[in-house]
Amino acid sequence: MSPPGALAVGIDVGGTRVKAGLVDPGGTVVATSGRWTPGRRTGPADVEAVIVDVARELAAHPLAAGQDVCAIGVGAAGFVDAGRGTVVFAPHLSWRDEPLQDRLRERLGRPVLVDNDAHAAAWAEHRFGAGVGESHLVVLTLGTGIGGAILTNGELQRGRHGLAGEFGHQQMVPGGRRCECGNRGCWEQYASGSVLRREGQEIVRTGGPHAAALSAACGGDAALLEGVHLTRAARAGDPASREVMVEVGRWLGTGLAGVVAALDPGTVVVGGGVSEAGDLLLDPARAALARHLVGRGHRPVPQVLAARLGVDAGLVGAADLARRAAANSPERSASPTLP
Amino acid sequence: MSPPGALAVGIDVGGTRVKAGLVDPGGTVVATSGRWTPGRRTGPADVEAVIVDVARELAAHPLAAGQDVCAIGVGAAGFVDAGRGTVVFAPHLSWRDEPLQDRLRERLGRPVLVDNDAHAAAWAEHRFGAGVGESHLVVLTLGTGIGGAILTNGELQRGRHGLAGEFGHQQMVPGGRRCECGNRGCWEQYASGSVLRREGQEIVRTGGPHAAALSAACGGDAALLEGVHLTRAARAGDPASREVMVEVGRWLGTGLAGVVAALDPGTVVVGGGVSEAGDLLLDPARAALARHLVGRGHRPVPQVLAARLGVDAGLVGAADLARRAAANSPERSASPTLP
Repeated sequence: MSPPGALAVGIDVGGTRVKAGLVDPGGTVVATSGRWTPGRRTGPADVEAVIVDVARELAAHPLAAGQDVCAIGVGAAGFVDAGRGTVVFAPHLSWRDEPLQDRLRERLGRPVLVDNDAHAAAWAEHRFGAGVGESHLVVLTLGTGIGGAILTNGELQRGRHGLAGEFGHQQMVPGGRRCECGNRGCWEQYASGSVLRREGQEIVRTGGPHAAALSAACGGDAALLEGVHLTRAARAGDPASREVMVEVGRWLGTGLAGVVAALDPGTVVVGGGVSEAGDLLLDPARAALARHLVGRGHRPVPQVLAARLGVDAGLVGAADLARRAAANSPERSASPTLP
Repeated sequence: MSPPGALAVGIDVGGTRVKAGLVDPGGTVVATSGRWTPGRRTGPADVEAVIVDVARELAAHPLAAGQDVCAIGVGAAGFVDAGRGTVVFAPHLSWRDEPLQDRLRERLGRPVLVDNDAHAAAWAEHRFGAGVGESHLVVLTLGTGIGGAILTNGELQRGRHGLAGEFGHQQMVPGGRRCECGNRGCWEQYASGSVLRREGQEIVRTGGPHAAALSAACGGDAALLEGVHLTRAARAGDPASREVMVEVGRWLGTGLAGVVAALDPGTVVVGGGVSEAGDLLLDPARAALARHLVGRGHRPVPQVLAARLGVDAGLVGAADLARRAAANSPERSASPTLP
């Protein structure tokens, strides 16, 4: 049994789902829960209510019985000023300059830490996943877009305003595909889950024998095809889906060559839903990185690894960051029960 | 008069010139010297001999009389593993895995530090120039290509192998202009001194009234036109040259939007020869950055400043880094004369 106070609640607030878990100091999720994320048209208070609700549920979980839940960590999809715990801007969550950390702390009566979801997921990979032991780590999270984080000597590099790690918006194609950010040709328009969905739907619409597997996956209705269908079809051997993976992997590796040239990490970890394709995606990415990296042949090329913590990475990282912050905060540092 | 031991020699080894100076702890260059860089076809020993020669000349300079030159810093155009002081790869200097720091230390009998030239220049801007007081700084050096450096809380972020800061090779145009690195469409093919030269030569070759100022600058021989001619013509009001500056500035700002999204600096300092164009280049760059930065309108946009130390930045930074390293090294830390 863990010592009292060793459990923390981690909550990953995405555009669709709020995933929550009770996490022990070794990064193991001992209990989970979840909610639907209130829609875009609801107010910030609705999302906050859901977070409070799921946090209370887990803090009262039988597995936490007799133990003090030492902290609650929230990873949110948006720009988060982690120093102040404020969500500066969250396009999917109707938050604007929301002092979420203070409000949750008040309502929950426990130490709360709010951070960006990609930072939280990267922290989990650094502490318990594919990035363990690497002094210079870049983590990319491939979902709808490309989120990310930079870790140097065990510390998240947050930048001046806590907004670092937004890798997805380097322009790679002038006048290219429109991006949610208002620009054209951003990297994430060529190497993310949205691309799988878009390409998969186009294959279904085009029809023909090569579309058979994907058409079957969505009952012939292209609009119903999601990225995950293409990933599954690729894993099952569908040639059209594999071709898309190779293309997306190439864009991933070509963009990575720029990131690696700028940051010189020893390891790149690729997570998020898209990474479930594994080497079908990562092998072409590795090849493109090796092909495009400046100084290739005269420098080490970083390893590119699949993330290990899967969909739980965000909540595990948020819980661990919150536990660490609580342990380091002056009013808690006297407690012998905190790691 | 400075205390004994307060002077350091800084040497900036570029593809064309070796610039050297005697630098005091306040970053002031109290004496200078220089040599031509031995051509590409000569061996590494020739470049080393030039460095030793100019270092000895400055250490024996009348202004250093009675003072101990405490350290010698070398900034070299190439991939430098600053931890080992080894030049891993220097395309313009015929060095491959050259343990330059150890060899120079042996020959000069003084503490020597070898670093990348862009890192050295950035360090100078951080310590004495446009970056003073900024906790999160990105410095770009626009010469033939785009060199750069990242400084966080007063420390150079060197990456896993000391190679961080190579911003110039993010792909911005698929199938675009060929780059020395072997790729196509790298950022530096659209936003560096090479572009000024290339565009200027093309304007001269095309002829017509709009080419008058640039043609005059090179005596009508396009092959003789250098980037600096275009910069001067732009400053003097030549419309064609100003148009090129606006275009290059736009590419600079568009690429910067990707760098800023990834790193979230508070300030970007732009140095190198091209930055002599000042606001003719930087104003369009600022506009493009503000236009392309992800989350614009919901986040602070970093200021973009011209570097202040001009062509001396590299040698000033190399001298200061060497002085700092000497002061921090165990065998020297007992000396009361070092800052």
